[in-house]
Amino acid sequence: MRLSVVVAEAALELVPSELLKTAAVRNDSERRGVEASRMLLDQSFHHSAMLKLKEQYKRGRPDLVHITLMNMVSTPMYLDGALKVYVHTWDDAILEIREGTRLPKSYIRFRGIMEKVLSGGGGEGLIKVQGGTVKDVLRTIRPDWVCGLSTQGAPMGLDELSAILMSRNNPCAIVGGFPHGHFSQETLQVMNRLVRIDPRPLEAHVVAARLVYEAEKRVRRDDSGGEKHSSPRPI
Amino acid sequence: MRLSVVVAEAALELVPSELLKTAAVRNDSERRGVEASRMLLDQSFHHSAMLKLKEQYKRGRPDLVHITLMNMVSTPMYLDGALKVYVHTWDDAILEIREGTRLPKSYIRFRGIMEKVLSGGGGEGLIKVQGGTVKDVLRTIRPDWVCGLSTQGAPMGLDELSAILMSRNNPCAIVGGFPHGHFSQETLQVMNRLVRIDPRPLEAHVVAARLVYEAEKRVRRDDSGGEKHSSPRPI
Repeated sequence: MRLSVVVAEAALELVPSELLKTAAVRNDSERRGVEASRMLLDQSFHHSAMLKLKEQYKRGRPDLVHITLMNMVSTPMYLDGALKVYVHTWDDAILEIREGTRLPKSYIRFRGIMEKVLSGGGGEGLIKVQGGTVKDVLRTIRPDWVCGLSTQGAPMGLDELSAILMSRNNPCAIVGGFPHGHFSQETLQVMNRLVRIDPRPLEAHVVAARLVYEAEKRVRRDDSGGEKHSSPRPI
Repeated sequence: MRLSVVVAEAALELVPSELLKTAAVRNDSERRGVEASRMLLDQSFHHSAMLKLKEQYKRGRPDLVHITLMNMVSTPMYLDGALKVYVHTWDDAILEIREGTRLPKSYIRFRGIMEKVLSGGGGEGLIKVQGGTVKDVLRTIRPDWVCGLSTQGAPMGLDELSAILMSRNNPCAIVGGFPHGHFSQETLQVMNRLVRIDPRPLEAHVVAARLVYEAEKRVRRDDSGGEKHSSPRPI
């Protein structure tokens, strides 16, 4: 059993061509000494330029995507190879994080890697990039059950959700990689179920951390023959 | 009931005076246009300068501290005022994160705030800074039980630990804010108990996310009169 998590419609993309000549982007490019077309779009620096951008409220938050990924790739479940992570971006790029890849906790290093990878500079075998929608990601995963997590879903406790997920052979969970708004209709269509795991809206990185933790507890419980605790016992 | 979490001996400090004239620090200062003495020490940029620094393996990882804080201040428990967060740094500064303070998810913004605060620029009422040890933090919290989380502790499941914590009126958990090594003897002395929550060593940000999540589940269970799930029911 392996769980795949897709961070969907993620707010991670290069500066789009229509913003390349804006003052905010040009200043940032000059300050950083990086070509504008090879920089990540970032609300923190390009806010004024982004105001007229389509769905701007969902875009330009690489910081959020970074922390979300950190909360998955630092877990025992990922390190044990039982968790596979994909990022689908707002502008339909797909990043497949290869097993065992340790992404940097330093945002500045992460930014450098993402800018290289999205500019076609290659992922050094650690991140595979191609174009595609969430549907295309699922063609690769071939899951037997797909669940989306959203405030628009039906309420379900995360322990219950993880029990369902982990009862499948090849389950997939989809987490939104954006700060505001909801999944697109196109993304919603691929899901077998849409659930809301908390009465409060949760940020993507909190959802990712909790989802993986509950799934991991479930795997360990199953591995230890149905015991309640996964904690090691004194020898 | 309120849980206090102290991120202790955190790898967050300004460049120490003995490194101000090193090439790595001077180059970084020039590139950023920030006075060297007002920059955060960062392994990503100052590695070569740090090699001879005392306990260098525990220092200069503001990225790690940032993600650890994000995993606490984005949670319902924090937003409900049931979680209080302190940072104690390697060089004995204490940062008290005032209730309701939203720290930025953008690392670059976080760095700017921390550099200002640690340089004596004031925390705009959102972060209170003073000198002191972990013992001094506890003088402020006045906890009735203090638990440290460490690979050197006795094995205990996090659900069990959270049950103990949340049975107290004013419990405190101490998480190490450093990438390698262990708590100092001074920090260990203030703890009533030292526990290890996973057979594998976990990074600080993963520990923080899981600790708060389990504590939060416990609070909600108690609030709802002992019910098993905290998920909202259809009306």
